[in-house]
Amino acid sequence: MTTEEEIASLKSQVAELTHRTGVIEDIQAIRTLHFKYGYYMDKWLFPEIVDLFAENGEFHFLNGIFKGKQGVKRFFGDGFGIDGPTYGVLTDHLQVQDIVDVAPDRMTAKGRFRCFLTGGVHESRKESTPIPSQFWEGGVYENTYVKENGIWKIRVLNYNLSWQAEYEKGWARSEKKLLMVSQFKKTYPDDPRGPDQLKPDPARHWPDATMVPFHYPHPVTGEKGRYSL
Amino acid sequence: MTTEEEIASLKSQVAELTHRTGVIEDIQAIRTLHFKYGYYMDKWLFPEIVDLFAENGEFHFLNGIFKGKQGVKRFFGDGFGIDGPTYGVLTDHLQVQDIVDVAPDRMTAKGRFRCFLTGGVHESRKESTPIPSQFWEGGVYENTYVKENGIWKIRVLNYNLSWQAEYEKGWARSEKKLLMVSQFKKTYPDDPRGPDQLKPDPARHWPDATMVPFHYPHPVTGEKGRYSL
Amino acid sequence: MTTEEEIASLKSQVAELTHRTGVIEDIQAIRTLHFKYGYYMDKWLFPEIVDLFAENGEFHFLNGIFKGKQGVKRFFGDGFGIDGPTYGVLTDHLQVQDIVDVAPDRMTAKGRFRCFLTGGVHESRKESTPIPSQFWEGGVYENTYVKENGIWKIRVLNYNLSWQAEYEKGWARSEKKLLMVSQFKKTYPDDPRGPDQLKPDPARHWPDATMVPFHYPHPVTGEKGRYSL
Repeated sequence: MTTEEEIASLKSQVAELTHRTGVIEDIQAIRTLHFKYGYYMDKWLFPEIVDLFAENGEFHFLNGIFKGKQGVKRFFGDGFGIDGPTYGVLTDHLQVQDIVDVAPDRMTAKGRFRCFLTGGVHESRKESTPIPSQFWEGGVYENTYVKENGIWKIRVLNYNLSWQAEYEKGWARSEKKLLMVSQFKKTYPDDPRGPDQLKPDPARHWPDATMVPFHYPHPVTGEKGRYSL
Repeated sequence: MTTEEEIASLKSQVAELTHRTGVIEDIQAIRTLHFKYGYYMDKWLFPEIVDLFAENGEFHFLNGIFKGKQGVKRFFGDGFGIDGPTYGVLTDHLQVQDIVDVAPDRMTAKGRFRCFLTGGVHESRKESTPIPSQFWEGGVYENTYVKENGIWKIRVLNYNLSWQAEYEKGWARSEKKLLMVSQFKKTYPDDPRGPDQLKPDPARHWPDATMVPFHYPHPVTGEKGRYSL
Repeated sequence: MTTEEEIASLKSQVAELTHRTGVIEDIQAIRTLHFKYGYYMDKWLFPEIVDLFAENGEFHFLNGIFKGKQGVKRFFGDGFGIDGPTYGVLTDHLQVQDIVDVAPDRMTAKGRFRCFLTGGVHESRKESTPIPSQFWEGGVYENTYVKENGIWKIRVLNYNLSWQAEYEKGWARSEKKLLMVSQFKKTYPDDPRGPDQLKPDPARHWPDATMVPFHYPHPVTGEKGRYSL
């Protein structure tokens, strides 16, 4: 090769490597963005959570869609009366099993995570608290992300609460209805804390069969298969 | 340096960076391969799981070795009568604590993961189901992987079930024998769903002491130590 | 651009990519260092744990600071009578939700992790064992790391035990005092297994409100906020 060809080849390789390195950094930024969200949720740091969203961000929960930072803020809002670390309130949100995929232009991304939650209120707490005595919860996130000014933000936080169970009963003998939360009936402003939009059907949860579609194809066959979006 | 030397040096550095970036991508591919396996396990997507294996893949479970895709398919096969998301069946497989190491030629790899399982059947489910009422399970994977045509696949899925405990009793008062599964006594075809090979000894599990050897040396001393392979 | 300028530009890009790739490798080394620590903790491999520390490493636990390898060894020391995998002893330390940040010079780093612990002793174990019958534990690590001779080691292992609960009672009805451990009253050598230094205040734990400050600013606003160091 001539010197010019050598340089052209190197430039091309370096450009490709720069892209690949950028993708890896994006994945790390997004998985830790979600993990940080989890640590904020533990301690009811709701203003911090609202700040994780893009301006046009959304929060999908049960059959409700909260739109824009205003909608997200309406949901998390005042933290249901709890703000920050609080005596006798336990809500540890374990966030695990991250699958993050970045779009070729590195401007959007998708992320799947599992949440496993230990929640409850200590019997010595005097104040009335809108949390069941003690319970387990499992769920799956299928989120989307957007990069704005070089910073990854949540575009859609889509939490699919799969099951809840009171500690004393476990999931085999849990109530069929959810603890603490229920499907939304009205949108905002008819419901002052309601979503901007209702999904046509209530969200399914335990003991019903649930399935959160994968944002990715099968990793070996590359096929979308039965449950990929 | 002459121009030629500069270019030679750059080529060498770019080649090395390309390798290192490839290793990082391999690690990410393998850890998410296992996490995707976990999400498939949640919902009894057994054909999808069989497709994660290489042609000469193996599944090691208890004292059994299932060989080749045929062997793997024989084990997972018809999903023990369950196929996909099912009313009243909970089997969340949390997959965490990934340690992935890629061989220098980037064609094989090893991976250690921890599984923490919440399993059971809701009392409202009418159908007989081959799952205990409600239980916890913990275990460790020490898997190997192979890259075929640029795609990472499972070479050996080696699940070491460490402990199980009925929800009502917990692990301090659990039965000494496993729930739902037991050591294999015969190979296929004498046992139509049996393994291709039996290990010489039954797999140890709680409350016996168990130890799944590490595929890696001590990260600081570099020594193999007491429990590395 | 002239050939010289092209080469200068390539050299600069390759140097930057080399740094970025190194940071990614550092993050992977540190997160797996902690995960390996977790697997060692499962099986009481305490000499292996001591070897994870730098010479001037520290272990912070409750209100005690154990300094240097001698201090760390004094704490973990003889494993409280247990050494390695042991009949009827379960202490699975799930390590999850890693947030690792590497300093610009790539010589030090910080890492936050969550621990979720299933612990206990099987009723069939005859020997007296310094572990409660069966319990849950949750906590958060905020560690620092140092690179020595190219190898990442623990500089400060800072474990913030947040809550413990006996299995039978759960966290809503748990004792207010910790199981198995308690605040240190004296330093070494007045307490032969005591810390080198006492923190001015006892460590807070459930059901008190607890908050382990984040080593990082808010990922979107970049602000330190209420609870960042």
